[in-house]
Parts: sequence; structure tokens; C-alpha cells
Amino acid sequence: MVFRKRTRVDVAKKMFLERISPIERTEKLSIEDARGRVTAEAIVSEIDVPDHRRAAMDGYAVRADDTTGASQSNPVLIREGARCVRVHTGSPMPQETDAVVMIEDTLPGVEIRSAVHPNKHVSLIGEDVAKGDTVFGVGHRLRGCDIAMLATLGISHITVYERPTVAVIPTGSELVPRGKSTADGIRETNGLMVGLYVEKWGGIPIYRDIVVDDPDLIEKEILACQGYDAIILCGGTSVGARDYVPGAIESTGVLLVHGVALSPGKPTALGIVGDTRAHTHPTLNHDPNSNSNSNHDFNPNSNYTPTPVLSLPGYPVACLIALSEFGRPAVMRLGRIPAEPRPRLHARISAKIASKIGYVTYTRVRVADGVAHPVMTSGAGILSSVTGSDGFVIIKEELEGLDSGDPVDVVWIE
Amino acid sequence: MVFRKRTRVDVAKKMFLERISPIERTEKLSIEDARGRVTAEAIVSEIDVPDHRRAAMDGYAVRADDTTGASQSNPVLIREGARCVRVHTGSPMPQETDAVVMIEDTLPGVEIRSAVHPNKHVSLIGEDVAKGDTVFGVGHRLRGCDIAMLATLGISHITVYERPTVAVIPTGSELVPRGKSTADGIRETNGLMVGLYVEKWGGIPIYRDIVVDDPDLIEKEILACQGYDAIILCGGTSVGARDYVPGAIESTGVLLVHGVALSPGKPTALGIVGDTRAHTHPTLNHDPNSNSNSNHDFNPNSNYTPTPVLSLPGYPVACLIALSEFGRPAVMRLGRIPAEPRPRLHARISAKIASKIGYVTYTRVRVADGVAHPVMTSGAGILSSVTGSDGFVIIKEELEGLDSGDPVDVVWIE
Repeated sequence: MVFRKRTRVDVAKKMFLERISPIERTEKLSIEDARGRVTAEAIVSEIDVPDHRRAAMDGYAVRADDTTGASQSNPVLIREGARCVRVHTGSPMPQETDAVVMIEDTLPGVEIRSAVHPNKHVSLIGEDVAKGDTVFGVGHRLRGCDIAMLATLGISHITVYERPTVAVIPTGSELVPRGKSTADGIRETNGLMVGLYVEKWGGIPIYRDIVVDDPDLIEKEILACQGYDAIILCGGTSVGARDYVPGAIESTGVLLVHGVALSPGKPTALGIVGDTRAHTHPTLNHDPNSNSNSNHDFNPNSNYTPTPVLSLPGYPVACLIALSEFGRPAVMRLGRIPAEPRPRLHARISAKIASKIGYVTYTRVRVADGVAHPVMTSGAGILSSVTGSDGFVIIKEELEGLDSGDPVDVVWIE
Repeated sequence: MVFRKRTRVDVAKKMFLERISPIERTEKLSIEDARGRVTAEAIVSEIDVPDHRRAAMDGYAVRADDTTGASQSNPVLIREGARCVRVHTGSPMPQETDAVVMIEDTLPGVEIRSAVHPNKHVSLIGEDVAKGDTVFGVGHRLRGCDIAMLATLGISHITVYERPTVAVIPTGSELVPRGKSTADGIRETNGLMVGLYVEKWGGIPIYRDIVVDDPDLIEKEILACQGYDAIILCGGTSVGARDYVPGAIESTGVLLVHGVALSPGKPTALGIVGDTRAHTHPTLNHDPNSNSNSNHDFNPNSNYTPTPVLSLPGYPVACLIALSEFGRPAVMRLGRIPAEPRPRLHARISAKIASKIGYVTYTRVRVADGVAHPVMTSGAGILSSVTGSDGFVIIKEELEGLDSGDPVDVVWIE
């Protein structure tokens, strides 16, 4: 495979992500259904939490003044009444009281064996959330604890951003649908894999039918999918006679990158179709690594916002790795999912690994007792090398492989 | 709050998890719906992948013998025919050919400009998966790539373990249901929070109604929920006059632990109800840290397997932290979810943090530019201290706080 240019992974990713506009569409959900979703409205509390003073301990609500000087050796006796009331954690504080003596510091009677100052063991009005506090800004991804907070504030529904729709298009004349016999070709599985990851990253996969290796049909399919928030194609992205996808992106929009310094995953292409206004973004025009033709003038009257297009290699391992590098951040950016650290493990590598300088190289490893064992260092078509692995050791462009015993960060396979 | 014993977190967890039997129930799912689920059958391939020889490059399928000595300066001419066929990546290899010459090493004609050895650029039968290979064992959690592998093998349905059911029981006379006004008390929100995390960890939450602080009603509710795979109660777990949950566990089963060296989260209780056979497990009887009465003989004729019971503090922060420490591994063990590294980030702490020696202490932090800023180091009732945080810095029992600038591992809040 010969590519004129092999764009660095970080450069390609930046070019692609800068042209992706997070979606604006919102929907209103019951808070019970909103876990993992992203707020499209700031949440300003309309109440104080607590909204009344509460006992924070089991014991007696008292007036602090009445306990002055009380101690184990010098207990103070207070008669139960408006100024001395048995309370439990969470009980409202009686009007005339301002502190709680813990039950273990009292004897029945009521004998107070410890002095308290005002507000001792009392939850004050608004001490958790004050009326008017902004509890969540726009763009906050809701965790379980956050939903509990919304419930605490008396909020039952919340406006969140919609999940982005992603058309998943398998291409290749050799492919047959999953239910069919393989006598006539290769079973289509990349589309399903891509769709499942899109879903995991917060998107809605739209599974499209297999498109054969025909440039017109591929162009037509890309145009048909422009209304989705993103398009991911699998296969047909290399430089062979039947690799029509990058050309189809160029004909229908702008091909930003074709060929990345990623191994496996080199034949990846990135582009954008639809409204070209975004193509003339001033900070993007003069990138020397760009393959794009920013004067390209496709369909200026389109009603669609530009649709990012990711063209993935057909070899399943290359497909998965390019998807992780480019599809993951693209789907998350569309869906406004904030960046989070990924599950990873420190380990030592058990064997020397070769990698090509200038390429980001993914090595599959199994991890046992803090040691990462390389599963296989080549074979972009051998899916079992991934399914038999726990994670990836990602070797940077600057390095020429790793030595046995080197410390590594294993990124867990999602 | 006075506890006779405060069991170490690791000891308490071990005692609890050792008595939890992973569920045996299975269900058959379409592979499209099986992401994240755990295999209950070993997957042995019935086919070779590939099941026929395939070209691994675009070019000409040839017999390697016919290319002997071919080079740029000394090309070999081969007539197209049974022994020289144009192929594309993925094409079946014609019967009489055994190697592929890449298209860039040929000129039309066909002029071969590079010698190849047999099997060069050919995907061999079974090179990914051989017929009879065990691709996944029992207990494998299915990732997107694994589902693609199942599809490759022609498998459309798979037997996985069911998700464990977890009864979530809020307790407390001060609580009102979420939809109700707070004039009469405190809105119930811990139950929803617990249920959402149970779901995230692979379980099915069964939301139960609020139970008031009445020992008989709490016992009755625990017994009513014995048929679920686990029971989680919120509130009523301390040592106050209205804290009936630990006693109710003791009356209906075995109270393993009451009081753990966790801050916040100290009042946590752990127990088991149902069949007592598991209670006399020999390795567990003589733990000096155990609070349990292992001779307790509840309901020996029960048809239920023992049901783990987790009793969480009512303060929301303590509830969440005890849930993470004990509920998370319990639900995952029930559901047979293999251990995985958690999302975490290395950072430096921006301020001194105090912690009590002998306690596992959770500090809430916000992270910016690799620096972890403590949000608040006390206040088990202040949920906004969690919802305003990115993660926890977990300080071990042996340490007495951290100094400003210390390196820390921030565990991301799920």
C-alpha cells in the first residue's frame, strides 16, 4: 500500500475533531433515565438543602447556653421540654433549640455530660446546597450521585443533549450479510463491531446495508447518510483498484486525510461532507500536514451541518484500532461527553516489541500478575489477537519498540 | 457513634465476598444484545477462519515457483490464466495459485518485478481461528470486538449469565417518596442512587418502598426480599435508638460485620440471610476481626441460597462510599463480572489532607491540569461535595493524611 502522505495520528485527529460541531438537539428525560447523559441546561437550585435545620446525630436537641460548663464530672440537669427534646439523626430541630448533645453524652433525666456550642451536630439550612446555587453547568455528564442530587433538589425531569446518530456503512463486494452462508464470501462483522462501540461511547448506531465496491453507489450512500451526525464506513479505504471510499469522500465533500501513521490502521481516511462553511475555519487552513483542499466548494446550499466521515480499514484489527483513535473522540465530541481517564494498568512488558519509528503502534497484550505479555505484534486481519487480549500497549511515534522489562501503561480493551 | 469493633475494610470485604455465590441462572441472547454480558458457555469454533484461502493484498495470485528470480531489474513475464489471476484483498485464492504479488510490484502484461515465496500475502485457512479452537471460556465478559468474533464464527445467539437482582430498600421514618413535598420530612434519594449504580455494575435494581424505623417491618421486608440475589438497605445502620437494620439482619440471618474502618461509611453493616450452610465455611469462622456469630442457626430449611445483605449509612456521601467499597464488588461477583482496572488519573494533591490512622479515608477532589484539589474532607451528609468532585483520593489505613504535593491516584467517580 503506497500513500503519498501519512499524517501523524495527533495531527489527523486534531484536523478531524476541529471540524466536528457538538450536537445542539436536546430532549427532556426523567432523571431515572438520565444516567450517563449530558446536561443541556444549567441546574440552579430553587431550594435550600436542607430546607430546615436537622439533627445530625441521635441525642437531645438543647440550647447550647443551657449546657455551659457541663462535663463528665460536672453534669448539668435539664428538664425535657421545648428546650430539651429527644431527636434522631435527620429529625427537624425544635424551634427553641440550637444544638444537639449526642446520646452517649447524656444520662436519662436528662443529665448532660458534655457542653455544646451553638449549631453543634446540627445540619444548617442550605449547608449542602443553597437556594440559587448552580449545581451543574451545561455539559455535565450525569453520574449516579448526580441523579441523586437532582432528586434531592426536587427535580424529576432534565433537559439533556440527544445522543448523536452515526450511520455505519460496511463496504466490499466480498461481503455477505451476517445471517448468510460464507460460501459466497466473507461474513460482514465490522459494521456490527463499529455499531456496538458507537453505542458504548454514547451514540446511536444506524446500521446500513452492505455497499459493493462501486464508486457511484458509495457516493450515493454517503449522500443518503448526510442527515446523520456522523458517517463511518468500513473497508475500501486503501489504495487498491477497488478502494473507492476515499475518492467518494473527495467527490462528495472534503477528504482531509488519507493514510495515517498508525499501525495497524494506516489506510484510514477522514473527511467531511455537507455544508462547506466549516471548511474555511481560519485556524485550519494553513496546516502543512493537511491533505485537504479547503477551497473545495461542495453543495453550498445544503441544509445540513457538515457531517464528519470516518473511513476505516476492512481488516478487523486495523478497523478497531482506527475506530478507537478517531471514532471514539469523534462520537464523544458530537455527544458532548467530557473527557475522562480510561481504565489502564501499569505493567512490565515480558518481551521485546518491535515498532516502526514514526508510527503509533498498537501491541495487543494479555496481563497476568502485573506483567504484560505481547499476544502478537502483526496481523491486522487476525481478530483473535484482539479477542485473546486484555489491552493495548500503545507505542509512540518517537520510539523504536520496547525492551523486555520496560514499564508500560496497558489501555484496557473496551 | 460507638461501635464495639471497627472491622478493617479489606477484612470485611473478604468476609462478605467469600459468602457470595455467583449466580448460576443463564439466558440465551442474540449476540447484538450481549455486549457487556458474561459467557456461560465456552465458545468452540465449528469452522476455520478464514474457511478458504484469501488474498491478503491487491495484486496477482500466482504460483511462487513461477516468480523465482524476479526483480525490478530482471522482471518475469507471466501470462494471465489459471496460474496468474488479478485479485483484490479478501478475494478467494484461485485453486492453482499459492502466493500474491502486490500490484505495485507488477506491470500490466503481466510483468512480475518481485519474487514471492509460497503463501506470501495469502491468508491461510484457519490462520485467525482454527476449527476446534476455544475462542472464549466460561466467564468471559463480551466486548464489542468479541461480539464481532462471534459473528465471524457464524454464531447468532449465546448463553450468558443472567444479571443479578438486587432489592434496594430505603429505611427511615423521616423519609418521604421522591414525588412528595418535603414539608413532612426528607426526600428519599439514596435508593435511587444505589439502584443506578447497581445497574451500572451489571445488576437489576428492584426498587422497594420506604420502610419506617420499625424492627418488625424491617425484618419482614428483609425476609420478603430473600428471593433476590442481594439486598441493599439504606439508613438505620448506626447505633442509635432507631437504628434497627443491623439487629434485623441478626434476627433473620447472620450479621457478619457492623462498623467498618471506613471514613465516611463507618456504620456499614454486612450480613447474610437465608440458608445457613454457607455460614459454617471453615476458613471464615476464626477471623479475629469478625463480628459474626457463626453458630447462629436461622431458617435451616430455607429453599433460598444465602442472600448477601448490605446495610448502608443514610448520609448520602457515606452511603455512596460504602456502596462503592462493598456493593460494587458484591454485585460484580454475583454477576461474574471479571475484575478490570478502573479509570484513574495520577495527580499531585494541592493541599494537606488529614486522615485518621486506621481508617480508609475517601477525600473528594476536583482535578485540573494534573493537580487534585480537595473539595471537602468531612461532611458525610454533604452530597454536593461529591457531585462537585471528579474523583476520590483513597488514603490507606497506615497513613495519617497526605502532604501538599504528594503524588496521588485519583479514582474517577462513576
